[in-house]
Amino acid sequence: MTAKIISIGDELLIGQVTNTNATWLAEQLNQIGIKVDKILAVSDKGEEIEHTVKSAISRHRLVITTGGLGPTKDDITKQCLANVFNAKLVLNENVLANNIAYFKARGHELTELNRKQAEVPDCCEVIENTCGTASGMWFDTPHNGVLISLPGVPYEMKTMMEQHLLPRLKALNGGEIIIHKTVMTHGLGESFLSERIASWEDNLPENFKLAYLPQPGILRLRLSAFGTDEKSLNAEMTKQLDELHRLIPELIYGYENESLESVVFRLLKEKKQTLSIAESCTGGYIAHRITMLPGSSAIFQGSVVAYDNNVKLNLLNVSLKTIEDFGSVSEQCVKEMAEGAKKLFKTDYAIAVSGVAGPSGGTDEKPVGTVWISVATPEKTVTKKFSYGDNRERNILRACLSALNLLRLEL
Amino acid sequence: MTAKIISIGDELLIGQVTNTNATWLAEQLNQIGIKVDKILAVSDKGEEIEHTVKSAISRHRLVITTGGLGPTKDDITKQCLANVFNAKLVLNENVLANNIAYFKARGHELTELNRKQAEVPDCCEVIENTCGTASGMWFDTPHNGVLISLPGVPYEMKTMMEQHLLPRLKALNGGEIIIHKTVMTHGLGESFLSERIASWEDNLPENFKLAYLPQPGILRLRLSAFGTDEKSLNAEMTKQLDELHRLIPELIYGYENESLESVVFRLLKEKKQTLSIAESCTGGYIAHRITMLPGSSAIFQGSVVAYDNNVKLNLLNVSLKTIEDFGSVSEQCVKEMAEGAKKLFKTDYAIAVSGVAGPSGGTDEKPVGTVWISVATPEKTVTKKFSYGDNRERNILRACLSALNLLRLEL
Repeated sequence: MTAKIISIGDELLIGQVTNTNATWLAEQLNQIGIKVDKILAVSDKGEEIEHTVKSAISRHRLVITTGGLGPTKDDITKQCLANVFNAKLVLNENVLANNIAYFKARGHELTELNRKQAEVPDCCEVIENTCGTASGMWFDTPHNGVLISLPGVPYEMKTMMEQHLLPRLKALNGGEIIIHKTVMTHGLGESFLSERIASWEDNLPENFKLAYLPQPGILRLRLSAFGTDEKSLNAEMTKQLDELHRLIPELIYGYENESLESVVFRLLKEKKQTLSIAESCTGGYIAHRITMLPGSSAIFQGSVVAYDNNVKLNLLNVSLKTIEDFGSVSEQCVKEMAEGAKKLFKTDYAIAVSGVAGPSGGTDEKPVGTVWISVATPEKTVTKKFSYGDNRERNILRACLSALNLLRLEL
Repeated sequence: MTAKIISIGDELLIGQVTNTNATWLAEQLNQIGIKVDKILAVSDKGEEIEHTVKSAISRHRLVITTGGLGPTKDDITKQCLANVFNAKLVLNENVLANNIAYFKARGHELTELNRKQAEVPDCCEVIENTCGTASGMWFDTPHNGVLISLPGVPYEMKTMMEQHLLPRLKALNGGEIIIHKTVMTHGLGESFLSERIASWEDNLPENFKLAYLPQPGILRLRLSAFGTDEKSLNAEMTKQLDELHRLIPELIYGYENESLESVVFRLLKEKKQTLSIAESCTGGYIAHRITMLPGSSAIFQGSVVAYDNNVKLNLLNVSLKTIEDFGSVSEQCVKEMAEGAKKLFKTDYAIAVSGVAGPSGGTDEKPVGTVWISVATPEKTVTKKFSYGDNRERNILRACLSALNLLRLEL
């Protein structure tokens, strides 16, 4: 069964609101084996809505609309659907009772506009809204299909889907199953990685599909399997993922959208060990990524952002001779920074980063994008040089990811 | 001129990625007077893409596609467009040279897949990609229309739009003028602020429109003016903004999406003064926001993330008695942190933050969301308590913004 999602509302088309409803719906439908074919956002214009809905129900067994069910003048979805199905809007006593109760609980009386919200097309089944006053609607469409109209307020829409619609749609869909697995990689760009796994990719079963989803510094690989037998699909998925892992073991740091900092956090927590950080060009970003994780105080002691060289000398105990001889963006300096942080914060591990984030500050010898990263462990200190591009924001992001990954490889 | 945006990629249809590209494009096009009629997300299927593109160019003067231009097998947009325009894919020497240089700068040789990226349909104009290897494409379509194909990687797409395409599309659109001005505010929620400015808003000229664009901690007000005479529109806009400023002077911290950290950076730079930071619950986020600004080393010396109490005692010189008597989330502690940072880093100003970000760690007396912020200036130290909600991520963000604003008010 394929589906089309139609999101209704001018706010989507002027870029004021991002269409997160459609993303959430697509994810939920996918998980019960319903494939979303198209997501369309249209404005609050009557003929537009009617035309779009008519065309969608003639082509898709499932059509879901969101939005346009509010009490104000710009909300016209209900009238449009009545037109599409040649139906009349009639007062629904259950909805009216629900809405009177809703306003009473909030100390208000029902207004005339809210009374109108209790009117629904006479050919639809009402989906109760337990969090608001705009009911959902279920319309049967030709060829055993269905059109569902939901409010645009995210939690109202989600509650209706979770409490009522998803189980019902799953039953309607029957057999078909889709499984997705996402593999998180760091360290190699799209084209180079695809060469490394070319033979594996070429020999994937016909019902498997691979997608490359790049982000700055991270490349996600999404493997999707389509079929009817969940058990055999899962077995084949496991087999394929194992083979992939054999090809690029050092590049895979996690699965299912896990972040590098979560992996590092988990590994340190398992080992009951602690971390400190000394950041120059990343300016606090690594500490920020780690402290965004709830409970990170279990492993994270603190950090120094050593933007000025005096901070490197005074707090991290980098020697003046090192900075004079090699500069602050150097193997020697970043090593002393990592060891200095480890000692200052009395931690088991420490990360240090020093580089030229740009846009200025580059030289021929150390162009913008040059970054030295060091990881001090209980046994040794590992230091590595990276060369990125000329975009400050991305250099900071990439240095952060490389640093976390360097630490991961030592854990 | 109306536009349709077509976003290509399975990841959008399985709910893995939210379509923020389309939101951004819609906002940008709107600002140059181009109205987006429809936003459609389709899968990486050839016939789907071709059908959708054909239909779109027959109905809209401007069509923009994003996605499907990567080097891997699932990226087929270029071939589809060649089919739609009955064109051949030919090697473009400029793109090839650009891509060879791109990889060389990163220490790689061009692979066969990357060489393929230099092939473009022979009937299009290439839009240079200064941040990556997938070129954009400009196709002239019937009736003086245009189809633009852009990569799905957000910063590559945005750079092409900003550097090259938006000015050109604005010229193509001609006639109607829309002026937008964005006012940045911090410190009051949407409903309360709208009450403060109600009389002003009700008396706006007919051709003016106000939109409230809330983000966590920030409320943007976008004032749009529509007309044909740019000079009189600008004059009226200035007048309206002046009146708005008279109503809420302390809430307005900037204009045109300026960030609080840019304002603070600018003010410190003008005064030739320096800043240091001591962060507990914000975990490096304030330092990160400031160091993302190019040239921030002119004002920023460094910071300490004092996650563990020992760091507060040893590095920031907070007294043990303060922590024992009042706890680390207290007026006394955060004041000592700010003064300690100012002394440690020898700066003119210092910010300190200590709070309960959550989800755990709250008590009856200091529930999750309790945050103390202190700003030490050359003359005095100002300390204030804030109470946010129970979401860790938003608490960190809000504490950061409140801290920057508290500093701004002292500058």
